[in-house]
Amino acid sequence: MNFLEEKILRDGVIKEGNILKVDSFLNHQIDIDIMRQMAYEFKRRFHGVEVNKVLTIEASGIAIATLLGHLYDVPVVFAKKSETANCTDDKYISQAYSFTHKKMNNVFISKPYLSATDKILIVDDFLADGQAAHSLIDLVRQAGGEVAGIGIAIEKGQQQGGSRLRAEGYRVESLAIIESMDWQTQTVRFRNQPEMSLEGANLTIG
Amino acid sequence: MNFLEEKILRDGVIKEGNILKVDSFLNHQIDIDIMRQMAYEFKRRFHGVEVNKVLTIEASGIAIATLLGHLYDVPVVFAKKSETANCTDDKYISQAYSFTHKKMNNVFISKPYLSATDKILIVDDFLADGQAAHSLIDLVRQAGGEVAGIGIAIEKGQQQGGSRLRAEGYRVESLAIIESMDWQTQTVRFRNQPEMSLEGANLTIG
Repeated sequence: MNFLEEKILRDGVIKEGNILKVDSFLNHQIDIDIMRQMAYEFKRRFHGVEVNKVLTIEASGIAIATLLGHLYDVPVVFAKKSETANCTDDKYISQAYSFTHKKMNNVFISKPYLSATDKILIVDDFLADGQAAHSLIDLVRQAGGEVAGIGIAIEKGQQQGGSRLRAEGYRVESLAIIESMDWQTQTVRFRNQPEMSLEGANLTIG
Repeated sequence: MNFLEEKILRDGVIKEGNILKVDSFLNHQIDIDIMRQMAYEFKRRFHGVEVNKVLTIEASGIAIATLLGHLYDVPVVFAKKSETANCTDDKYISQAYSFTHKKMNNVFISKPYLSATDKILIVDDFLADGQAAHSLIDLVRQAGGEVAGIGIAIEKGQQQGGSRLRAEGYRVESLAIIESMDWQTQTVRFRNQPEMSLEGANLTIG
């Protein structure tokens, strides 16, 4: 079991509706040591892959993208989300459905910040249906750039985002892949790991 | 002139309506070297000040907050924004008017991530009217914590946020303070600096 799987067991909480709350260390409060380990681990896994830019989507991907940009010493770009179209010539725009907020978002990047010579490492905190990842890939493609790889903190293996991206030929590196979880028993099974109990199950954080 | 003032002259663009666009290095694309220098400079300016947590607000404050958390080796918390009230017992909630989006936002932090023993360094990319900073201070106070200081990348000195916060006794360290700017001549005057021409004035990025 790796450091992130251990952290999920220790501090994660499973909520009804297949929701894993990792607010306490990943996407509201940020455990800087876990975040650093994640950045080092992505760099290790993508060793030998040429990367000249790190790309993520606001808001919770920005922390890991920043540390990764720091390690690679390359610029970071975060795509912005907006309900309104506001379509102008100077932006690449794609669409992504947000299951969290139950609405379609426009995802955009100003054109000067993506280019045809870019070799881009996409990173995000979660991969479930792959909506955000696909919209980021779409933006890179519109610019004529290359997706060097996709680094994900937590992949929900029951949903199809990861398997679809891999079938499309992308190299996806997920630090923790959840095969199944049960909010009633507060148990989780990571890919290639036995089923485990969450120690954080007694927490009452919403 | 410091590194951030120089970067603003080189890559900033002034738009009509007193808007300074720094999308190319601060809040859309992130120049990781500038971001690192900012983190080091905040740490230098707040030398001797006890800090056990870095606090910001999503989305564009997260990058600098993360590097600062990395330097201090302390957790980072980013407050979330939401239009809907969604008032529950487990959140500290405050309000802030967004001039960018012309609406009132609820700003909130889950209660476990702020505490009465916290000595918090607040950081953000911009300070204008101080709406976001005041809402963050309000959240820290609700938890009974202490604001150790406020670190700002770019303060708009013509607006009252900075002077109000200083009058209230907060230590505000802004790396670049804009006294005036003119979109027609693409000139800017930083506090304690002569008026300067933006070199980026020929860019057409919206």
